[in-house]
Amino acid sequence: MHEYLFFCSPDRIDNNKLSLVDAEFKHCCRVLRHKVGDEIDVFDGTGTLYHAKIIKIGKHIASCKILKRSIVNKNKFTIHLAVGLVKSKALDLIVSQATSLGITSFTPLATEHSIKRKFNHARYQKKMLEAIKQSRQLTLPRINNIMSLSEWHNRYDITDLKLVGYQHADKSLPTFITGKTKSVALVIGPEGGFTNSELKSVKKVGFQAVNINKNRLRTELAVTATLSGIHILKGGK
Amino acid sequence: MHEYLFFCSPDRIDNNKLSLVDAEFKHCCRVLRHKVGDEIDVFDGTGTLYHAKIIKIGKHIASCKILKRSIVNKNKFTIHLAVGLVKSKALDLIVSQATSLGITSFTPLATEHSIKRKFNHARYQKKMLEAIKQSRQLTLPRINNIMSLSEWHNRYDITDLKLVGYQHADKSLPTFITGKTKSVALVIGPEGGFTNSELKSVKKVGFQAVNINKNRLRTELAVTATLSGIHILKGGK
Repeated sequence: MHEYLFFCSPDRIDNNKLSLVDAEFKHCCRVLRHKVGDEIDVFDGTGTLYHAKIIKIGKHIASCKILKRSIVNKNKFTIHLAVGLVKSKALDLIVSQATSLGITSFTPLATEHSIKRKFNHARYQKKMLEAIKQSRQLTLPRINNIMSLSEWHNRYDITDLKLVGYQHADKSLPTFITGKTKSVALVIGPEGGFTNSELKSVKKVGFQAVNINKNRLRTELAVTATLSGIHILKGGK
Repeated sequence: MHEYLFFCSPDRIDNNKLSLVDAEFKHCCRVLRHKVGDEIDVFDGTGTLYHAKIIKIGKHIASCKILKRSIVNKNKFTIHLAVGLVKSKALDLIVSQATSLGITSFTPLATEHSIKRKFNHARYQKKMLEAIKQSRQLTLPRINNIMSLSEWHNRYDITDLKLVGYQHADKSLPTFITGKTKSVALVIGPEGGFTNSELKSVKKVGFQAVNINKNRLRTELAVTATLSGIHILKGGK
């Protein structure tokens, strides 16, 4: 695998061709100055990696011939993550680190203690792409727009384990996660946590409270600590 | 416990008195405008919490009478963490998050792939204090100045488990950490990792390579993921 990876969305890939546009085109042809005939590595965000040769460079598009395609990670383990909206700096870290650790979807939640109420979808899509390229975790998570807690748990009522992070919970991750766990819906509160009525509402629909650490962790650290723990308990690696 | 905690180093505490100076004094008396007679919570960084009453406020010092002292966490599990020097922003995150997760000591390492060669001790001491106050992890880690890898492992050749983070290692954390693990020395490389000769040198003195995640993690995420994993495998919480 080359050091640099380019992203190409699946709708720009057919049997033996793919094309780079926008930021990926610029980076490939303007910044890295790739020419016709150069071979590059491209990923499509669904876990497939393409080795391709540039055959034509236009003003805004680079057309490439696919030489080889390989499936790098078809992760069958799914994690749907939802986080109470926090400040942009913390959210940047959450989106980047959660992507690097491997999640299936990310949803920002409008909760009672969320101060922020806006979510710049394009910004976080970009953060995810950067994290994907850096970590080589080649499956791009789905990124949703802001939802309420109930909208989110209705949508992801498909997992075999539902966890809500709560500092004062009695049980910790090893109680819940085993090698057999196939899918997790995980929700972490914003700074200040969930209100009692929010906690009650998620418990009512089957969420179990999990304690991540005896200390009081910031939202971004709670997310990373939980995801790391899940991966370690799940598969070892 | 009050929402706000003030720090007082142990040399400013005697049988029944303690005093706040510098930033802690300013925060207490200038920012939060505490007056003589007010009761406050103070920690000393060694795991003891004091409930105290302000008895005198000078120009640069607030003298307090200790009303109650309680030992909040005497953590017998020790983690000595060393990290290859990375950029300041990443180092800020590492120091804050590692402190919140509970470490015994932190050492910045000058390694072959470290670009940065300076370490602002006072800056990171401050970061640690902030993290302590936020997380209620009341034991202040020791923070060392820059060392070489060999200086560091000579100094912490006292632990029962020595781990070096390595993306291509065969073994992962659950192989090493059990409820019986008492002390860990953990070393994580800078961006670009350790060189082969550095890896060889630590393996020679008993370090075992551990794989944290199948993806390529940035140094700061590798540190957080490993510490989270250790705590979860160690004690559940």
